[in-house]
Amino acid sequence: MTVDVATTVPEADRLDALHAVLESGSVIKATRMLNALHPAEIAHVLQSMLPRQRELVWGMVDDPAQGEVLLYLNDDLRDELLRDMAPSRILEVAEALETDDLADLIQDLPATVTREVLNSLDEQRRERLETALAFPEDTAGGLMNTDMITVRPEVTLDVVMRYLRRLKDGLPDLTDNLIVVNRQGRYLGVLYLTDLLTNDPDDSVAEIMTLAVQPMLATLDAREVANRFEQLDFVSAPVVDEDGHVLGRITVDDVMDLIREEADHQFMGQAGLSETEDMFAPVLLSARRRAVWLGVNLLTAFLAAWVIGRFESTIQQLVALAVLMPVVASMGGIAGTQTLTLAIRGIALGHLSAKNLHWLLGKEMAVSLINSLVWALVVAAIAWLWFGSVGVASIIAVAITINLLVASLAGALLPLFLDRVGIDPALAGGVILTTVTDVVGFLAFLGLATLLLV
Amino acid sequence: MTVDVATTVPEADRLDALHAVLESGSVIKATRMLNALHPAEIAHVLQSMLPRQRELVWGMVDDPAQGEVLLYLNDDLRDELLRDMAPSRILEVAEALETDDLADLIQDLPATVTREVLNSLDEQRRERLETALAFPEDTAGGLMNTDMITVRPEVTLDVVMRYLRRLKDGLPDLTDNLIVVNRQGRYLGVLYLTDLLTNDPDDSVAEIMTLAVQPMLATLDAREVANRFEQLDFVSAPVVDEDGHVLGRITVDDVMDLIREEADHQFMGQAGLSETEDMFAPVLLSARRRAVWLGVNLLTAFLAAWVIGRFESTIQQLVALAVLMPVVASMGGIAGTQTLTLAIRGIALGHLSAKNLHWLLGKEMAVSLINSLVWALVVAAIAWLWFGSVGVASIIAVAITINLLVASLAGALLPLFLDRVGIDPALAGGVILTTVTDVVGFLAFLGLATLLLV
Repeated sequence: MTVDVATTVPEADRLDALHAVLESGSVIKATRMLNALHPAEIAHVLQSMLPRQRELVWGMVDDPAQGEVLLYLNDDLRDELLRDMAPSRILEVAEALETDDLADLIQDLPATVTREVLNSLDEQRRERLETALAFPEDTAGGLMNTDMITVRPEVTLDVVMRYLRRLKDGLPDLTDNLIVVNRQGRYLGVLYLTDLLTNDPDDSVAEIMTLAVQPMLATLDAREVANRFEQLDFVSAPVVDEDGHVLGRITVDDVMDLIREEADHQFMGQAGLSETEDMFAPVLLSARRRAVWLGVNLLTAFLAAWVIGRFESTIQQLVALAVLMPVVASMGGIAGTQTLTLAIRGIALGHLSAKNLHWLLGKEMAVSLINSLVWALVVAAIAWLWFGSVGVASIIAVAITINLLVASLAGALLPLFLDRVGIDPALAGGVILTTVTDVVGFLAFLGLATLLLV
Repeated sequence: MTVDVATTVPEADRLDALHAVLESGSVIKATRMLNALHPAEIAHVLQSMLPRQRELVWGMVDDPAQGEVLLYLNDDLRDELLRDMAPSRILEVAEALETDDLADLIQDLPATVTREVLNSLDEQRRERLETALAFPEDTAGGLMNTDMITVRPEVTLDVVMRYLRRLKDGLPDLTDNLIVVNRQGRYLGVLYLTDLLTNDPDDSVAEIMTLAVQPMLATLDAREVANRFEQLDFVSAPVVDEDGHVLGRITVDDVMDLIREEADHQFMGQAGLSETEDMFAPVLLSARRRAVWLGVNLLTAFLAAWVIGRFESTIQQLVALAVLMPVVASMGGIAGTQTLTLAIRGIALGHLSAKNLHWLLGKEMAVSLINSLVWALVVAAIAWLWFGSVGVASIIAVAITINLLVASLAGALLPLFLDRVGIDPALAGGVILTTVTDVVGFLAFLGLATLLLV
């Protein structure tokens, strides 16, 4: 037997195959191919499709799978598909989901449907749903699942194994350990399935369980949860309340999604885009969202223009200034962005805090000073060769040095400052920084020229 | 019993406690606290420390843990610490590592030490090391571990369980399934530990194993591996060669690290920084690395300056142009960066390819057209109020429209083009794009003014 190579080829090629079948018009074959995929893969297919194809393909997805596919879609596309579904259909889809998945979906449903969904649940499911909804999304509690298997420390491994065999639904997904609790439901430790399998069945859970896994408080910041999973290589980790009662567990698949979202947020945020931005979103929706960012940028651009405007007569006397001023501003922007990027990542990874900020600040300013000495000389030499003016050459060198120093100062201080006042540095940091470097660059260069040259 | 809250507090606070003990000078207590941490946590502590503290703390790390700590450090700091270690010490550390970890570390060792390490290994370890080193880092083969448990399909679950209990080293970390192979070592399926535990011990592996898990070809791109783990929620997945022979398995912890590295690369790359950049790297090293990026930027800035220089006499006659020209350039830069960011992420996630590029292109140009109509009017109105010239107002409106359209065209085409010619879009995309928008912006604005106004 050889492995079916068709199934190990890159996804792009499998997508191509599906596209080809779709275009050939063979709906039955395409439907079969589509529904053989994992819900996450179907979501991926939908997201790589053009809007008009999406509707067709969404109609092909088997009813029971639709709920799960919705969970894997980005917010934009999910909202769009939900808008087009009949409330009764949404209700069916919602009821078929597991409680934890339902908790994720329910926040996106229209209010009337939410009420209907809640009414249709039995008491146990409603309670679980409420536990899952009780914590903010960006905490350990918001990330957790409530489905888990707990065991008592005094029983033997053999008893545990017989208990597991009697479970009618099997073990929850991504179960690598059972949570050991006392009579009051308080956390004691975890029993890894690997230890359950490799130890003497007559040993007790208490003898074999691992005490070293620290449970996470439900209020713990989600970013800290992700850092712990990364550092400690967890597959799942228990979540407790302040009294140590086990509330649920967090699984690595959700943490991986979180890391990806955080990363997307950082990356997309720099361009003023939302991390849920759908590449194939409708033109008008995209245009409206982007317009806001362009408007913000326009304000800062006019601030810079206003600064230049203060020096109109200087520029008229010495047009070389107009030619060279973008060089001063852009050198500051680049240097500042480097420091800003380093600081934003340092905060995200927990490496940077108010405690070691002064050190980063000192280092970044030293780096800027060295680089400004090097590049200011180069720029001055070019300016002198170009315009033959020692005055312009000296002034651009000084202006670049000033701007690079201010840039690294602003780049290091901005993220922590914004973080403290509750503004997202990944979103606002870049705009504010380049405003600073534009204004300081133009002011230093044109101001010095006005004072000394004209 | 209540949970020891001290252990569930955020890492930042535990770090603070360690810092406090270090500053109190209590070396013995600090050493004990430090070595109670996971190697990944020790690495994190080292990375959040200032250089002079690092040396002290590194000296406190227990010998057996040093090797693992090295694995978790960023490249810069690892190289630094390795440089200061005696070759004999490195040899000791290397020999204590597991084969797969050694494969990760060995690429960073000095050539002489590498040879010594290879000579000191027994044949089985050397063979495993060579398998692990045979594939490029960015493929499934480069990501895989060679430690795994395989079982045969015809045995019963009971036999498997008895076999596992006899393993003297226990199961490898992050084992959620056993790999089922035929007599020739070819992949057949996986047996999940959860299924092993919940089914009748008299059932055979063949009856209970899962066939749906597709093995990954060793040559599969690492990015595709990460996408599959994310979509299919794998904890581990088997890796095979072209004939279906099982070579090893990939575990989710390594995939999580990969996702983080990719994300860091995208985020840091935009500022011309390496993802391994150490926040507390020595000043001279940082200055040298940043200098390169500033130099590249300087070239592009002078290109823009040169364009402006072509229009010196126009500017002298109409200084309003010098005041307003940064507005035109920056609007293009912002709009282009948004499209570029979307396209880079689309490629990374596998949503964007040459096949649907024309659609993105059309959409982005439509978005730019709508936004340029809105904002060009606003800018024109402000310019008219400011300078009282209908000519300047009309020209800036046209220039902004041109620049926004070119910006979205460049933003959509650049990443795929760079990708094809083997240049990293995350690193080079932004610089090239803003060069385009600067040059086009200045050229359109000043060029039109020269033709029509002066």
